[in-house]
Amino acid sequence: MLSVRLLLAVFTSTLLFTTSATLQADTQLSIMPLPAHATSGVGSFVVDGTFQVRIEGYTEPRLERAKDRFLATLTSKTGIPLWLNNRPGGPKFIIKTEGPSREIQQLGEDESYHLAVSPTQVILSAPNPLGILHGLQTFLQLVDTTPQGFTVVAVTIDDAPRFPWRGLMLDSGRHFMPLDVVRQTLDGMEAVKFNVFHWHLSENQGFRIESKTYPLLQEKGSDGNYYTQNQVRDIIAYARDRGIRVIPEFDMPGHATAWFVGYPDLASGKGHYLIERKWGIFDPAMDPTRESTYEFLDRFIGEMTSLFPDAYFHIGGDECNGKEWDTNSRIQEYMRQHNLKDDAALQAYFTGRVQQLVTKRGKITIGWDEVLQPDTPKDVLIQSWRGPDSLALAAQRGNRGILSAGYYIDLNQPASQHYAADPLAGAAAKLTPEQQRNILGGEATMWSEFVTPENVGSRIWPRTAAIAERLWSPKEVTDVDSMYRRLAIVSNNLTHNGQTYEAVHERMLQRLVGTNDVTSLKVLASALEPPKEYARESLASYDSFTPLNRMVDTVPPESNRAREFHNLASLIAAGKASPEQWAQAREWLILWRDNDASLQPILPRSELTAELEPVSHSLNQTAVIGLSALDSLQNHKPVSESVRQQQVSFLKSAETPQAVLLDMIVPSVELLLNATTP
Amino acid sequence: MLSVRLLLAVFTSTLLFTTSATLQADTQLSIMPLPAHATSGVGSFVVDGTFQVRIEGYTEPRLERAKDRFLATLTSKTGIPLWLNNRPGGPKFIIKTEGPSREIQQLGEDESYHLAVSPTQVILSAPNPLGILHGLQTFLQLVDTTPQGFTVVAVTIDDAPRFPWRGLMLDSGRHFMPLDVVRQTLDGMEAVKFNVFHWHLSENQGFRIESKTYPLLQEKGSDGNYYTQNQVRDIIAYARDRGIRVIPEFDMPGHATAWFVGYPDLASGKGHYLIERKWGIFDPAMDPTRESTYEFLDRFIGEMTSLFPDAYFHIGGDECNGKEWDTNSRIQEYMRQHNLKDDAALQAYFTGRVQQLVTKRGKITIGWDEVLQPDTPKDVLIQSWRGPDSLALAAQRGNRGILSAGYYIDLNQPASQHYAADPLAGAAAKLTPEQQRNILGGEATMWSEFVTPENVGSRIWPRTAAIAERLWSPKEVTDVDSMYRRLAIVSNNLTHNGQTYEAVHERMLQRLVGTNDVTSLKVLASALEPPKEYARESLASYDSFTPLNRMVDTVPPESNRAREFHNLASLIAAGKASPEQWAQAREWLILWRDNDASLQPILPRSELTAELEPVSHSLNQTAVIGLSALDSLQNHKPVSESVRQQQVSFLKSAETPQAVLLDMIVPSVELLLNATTP
Repeated sequence: MLSVRLLLAVFTSTLLFTTSATLQADTQLSIMPLPAHATSGVGSFVVDGTFQVRIEGYTEPRLERAKDRFLATLTSKTGIPLWLNNRPGGPKFIIKTEGPSREIQQLGEDESYHLAVSPTQVILSAPNPLGILHGLQTFLQLVDTTPQGFTVVAVTIDDAPRFPWRGLMLDSGRHFMPLDVVRQTLDGMEAVKFNVFHWHLSENQGFRIESKTYPLLQEKGSDGNYYTQNQVRDIIAYARDRGIRVIPEFDMPGHATAWFVGYPDLASGKGHYLIERKWGIFDPAMDPTRESTYEFLDRFIGEMTSLFPDAYFHIGGDECNGKEWDTNSRIQEYMRQHNLKDDAALQAYFTGRVQQLVTKRGKITIGWDEVLQPDTPKDVLIQSWRGPDSLALAAQRGNRGILSAGYYIDLNQPASQHYAADPLAGAAAKLTPEQQRNILGGEATMWSEFVTPENVGSRIWPRTAAIAERLWSPKEVTDVDSMYRRLAIVSNNLTHNGQTYEAVHERMLQRLVGTNDVTSLKVLASALEPPKEYARESLASYDSFTPLNRMVDTVPPESNRAREFHNLASLIAAGKASPEQWAQAREWLILWRDNDASLQPILPRSELTAELEPVSHSLNQTAVIGLSALDSLQNHKPVSESVRQQQVSFLKSAETPQAVLLDMIVPSVELLLNATTP
Repeated sequence: MLSVRLLLAVFTSTLLFTTSATLQADTQLSIMPLPAHATSGVGSFVVDGTFQVRIEGYTEPRLERAKDRFLATLTSKTGIPLWLNNRPGGPKFIIKTEGPSREIQQLGEDESYHLAVSPTQVILSAPNPLGILHGLQTFLQLVDTTPQGFTVVAVTIDDAPRFPWRGLMLDSGRHFMPLDVVRQTLDGMEAVKFNVFHWHLSENQGFRIESKTYPLLQEKGSDGNYYTQNQVRDIIAYARDRGIRVIPEFDMPGHATAWFVGYPDLASGKGHYLIERKWGIFDPAMDPTRESTYEFLDRFIGEMTSLFPDAYFHIGGDECNGKEWDTNSRIQEYMRQHNLKDDAALQAYFTGRVQQLVTKRGKITIGWDEVLQPDTPKDVLIQSWRGPDSLALAAQRGNRGILSAGYYIDLNQPASQHYAADPLAGAAAKLTPEQQRNILGGEATMWSEFVTPENVGSRIWPRTAAIAERLWSPKEVTDVDSMYRRLAIVSNNLTHNGQTYEAVHERMLQRLVGTNDVTSLKVLASALEPPKEYARESLASYDSFTPLNRMVDTVPPESNRAREFHNLASLIAAGKASPEQWAQAREWLILWRDNDASLQPILPRSELTAELEPVSHSLNQTAVIGLSALDSLQNHKPVSESVRQQQVSFLKSAETPQAVLLDMIVPSVELLLNATTP
């Protein structure tokens, strides 16, 4: 535990540094996350064919690879062949690293960097390679297209993260995510300075990693879709190259049906167990009362902790409904004998035993909210998914924790909503400074019931960059308009970092309708979003076999156009819109209104677009009402009350999802219509 | 040589089979290349979640991998998760293979297949895996989006290629092409049934493969951009999996400067040699008069022929200007002594010696046109790049040959032009049937002066699919309209096969202007094409360092919109256009006319778009003239002669490239304007 205490000291000083610092971030910088400190200089640095990078002082192969990757991304951003680096002219980009970082990346290592851009030279310096990796991404985001070419404004940046734990969880259990998706996810994480990849590797629907000790786990529990140990080692190295720790999660005692297909004796029921094909919470759970369970887990955890070098190990612990325990008389008897009064107590007993197995391997246990019980050991780290209160409670009790409530990116919520969630807000704001120090940061969670390898990128990006900013940038960085403005630019940047979600969106639209020209389908799509939170599950029935190839799977979780229109509608309703904003709102409404006529003939041609006929028609109607409201507002002539009532009632009905899609124009048009009342 | 004769016999029978067959290809099939025979059935087969594939009879790992790849592509095309193949319901897609193909894929192997699609089942059978690979691609292309879901029309196809040699050459010398580009190219080749990947591995500008015998070749001649032998082995295996042979080319005695950087003694000059950075024909050439040259080449060819298993080995031989020979008195003396009357004779002597070295390793020599001399051995295969006549001459002399003249896809010519080039047309049409049998097919050539790894895909695809059809489908398949109609569909299909050129186009446009919204830039781009043939070189100066990131590098070689507009203009000028066609032409002209106003404010913002200001303005003017011509034609009112003269003279000047771009609307508007004369 010595090393942990040491690192906590480092982390504490980092935290003080960032929170006590005055915010000087120049909001003109179109980057994300915004740095802790930035001071504008004079002039700008031009990236041209003479650009060269030199590594001075300490170096290591990881830095050389980072340099090559940096040049490749910069080549993609500019189209200038920077890989031919034996050009005349001295190096203009100097990397200075004081020394190595830890052999195995640790929580709380110094991630700070100093980036000084002048018109003639760039100097990037950092105590260790972690800061260099972050600084390179900052520079890449700063590259701008100008009349002078590809330039970077002169600026001096001193940057370090607010929180030492900035994670993204990927659920490879429900839908298996192939290696290229994992790598692409890590590429995106690097771009916005995440440093923890939390890999959800086992679920009711699949056990996704090779165990050599218990090979039936993957052989019977994965449909053949699992990662070999060599592949996992490659991913860990790939992540380390990007300044990212990899933490595996093996969810237990619930969410574990796929384990039981090969090893039914682990479970509490009579099983014959099959891989679960539906989504939800299921009864199968590990048997906490048999020693054989712990013997199995001891060997398994031994195998996995030697594969994953990180100091932390996630044992899940969420959503165990206890039904298999309740109906097993042997387990009930055991509970009576051991004075375990309810399922929660039994799970706490289980967690305690497993935590000992993890500790025995020199690792620190992480678990979801549910593992926090009055006697939970203080070194167990709590991942809060049910709300900020449980995180505050953990911190108060002396457990460290990270926030995921508010960062559930599978719920199709707007970036602004995630952006508003702060690990130190709510109940946590009332904690003592010492207790607050127990809150290490947060993790975005990409659960995969409703995503496939194809569209998962469009669910993660770009919104997750807003979470990255929340966890990296000073607390005071909260301007939502600035965030959205920069998010659009970062989205473009992510493309050069290997993210393909824009191209996938186009390809999925083309697939919907079976042609390359998707102009009018795009106009419809621009008004639509998937249902929020868990609404989708109630609108239709889904399982592992359900094709996720409909419009709802194609549209991004948040429509930029609909958001922009909502801003316009708000301004117009408030009487604060400029003539240009009036014109823009009208133009979009006309586009939406007229689109139906060109789209309807196309929609019946494909099974996948036939369901959009009423959606398109409804958008047309909504736009007609919006235009009528605009006319009314502009001419100060209210529409008749009977027409108005019809319009209100239509809009009310249009709030209901059709074809599992929300028409996001409706609330804005409702706003306009409300404003027409005298 | 026995094996070659045997294979020629097989090939001959294949050739007879396809040419003698009556063309029954149903032109309703939207696939490319069109099959030799297709008979329509009744109804259609639905690809849904119950789809399963079974391999019956002979199998091998390559077939299993092909099946997995097939399912992955089909999943991408449909969005249906077909990888979960333990679903209820029997297999609906049966693969029957009679036996293996050759261990090393050979020229002239049987590539035929039989594909029978009924509403309930699909049976794909073939003598060997090569035919199965082709048949799988045919099926993938047949999948259509319909109101009934993803369906394939019932059809029976008996298919086999017209020519046994259907190649694509990729120039990795001038611009190095990373492995992912090579693999992506092979993926595209598989989709349209190419079977030869010709890999141009050495050039003045780079030596691109690891030699363990002569390591200075790559160490000094590649800027670090070369393929290791392990990577090459991987590519060969990757190609074999896709039914594609890999033939390396080492260009000599010219086009070889990069060799001389590490091994100057190979050359004929006094060199200190440096990697060439410019494009063109250069003086350095191997010294044909020293035995040490042949000793070097003997060991080198020994190394490379054991790395590349194919029976053929390409030694280049093109464009040696002989200047280093002319100015070297020792070489001149040698020529006198050996009665070599000119440079051509000296090169013939060199070729003869090298050909012996290739033969000694059990391989067959290929060379470009220039290697064909009166005494060239009959087993040397000639690749004709200067024109069809030299191919016919080779065939007449008893040498076998392949056509590349007409298939230079780097020249930015329309697909129709390549489509019209037939290996057995022109002089070859007058050959005896026996001589014609010497003509084995053709190869598209992707030279890389003006492409980068980023945009090379947009130069190869989709146009090269038209060449694939020329080389595969019966000679009678020549309908250009049908070709273009199917090319658009195949282009969509290629996306699911891993081609990214559409997404790259979008990303390059975004880079040009530095924003995500490229709507008006796209309207401009839709009218533009790069200059044709070698015109670009004369319009500006280029070298290895020149960024290829301008609009000219972004627009496809052929604009679909401009081609469609040209068709409309032709119909209107001929008085044969329908009212819809009139309206369409007018709509597009208005779009082009009005685009300038929204685009001009954006263009000055980026160095890369500033050059487009006159281009956009000129498009506006051209469209104005086009609309005036339409009015004149519609109202039967000629414009005044003076206005007309101004218009003619403007259009004449607009024919000249601006910003290295052709305005492809100009010829169509000229057509319209001409039609207005009484």
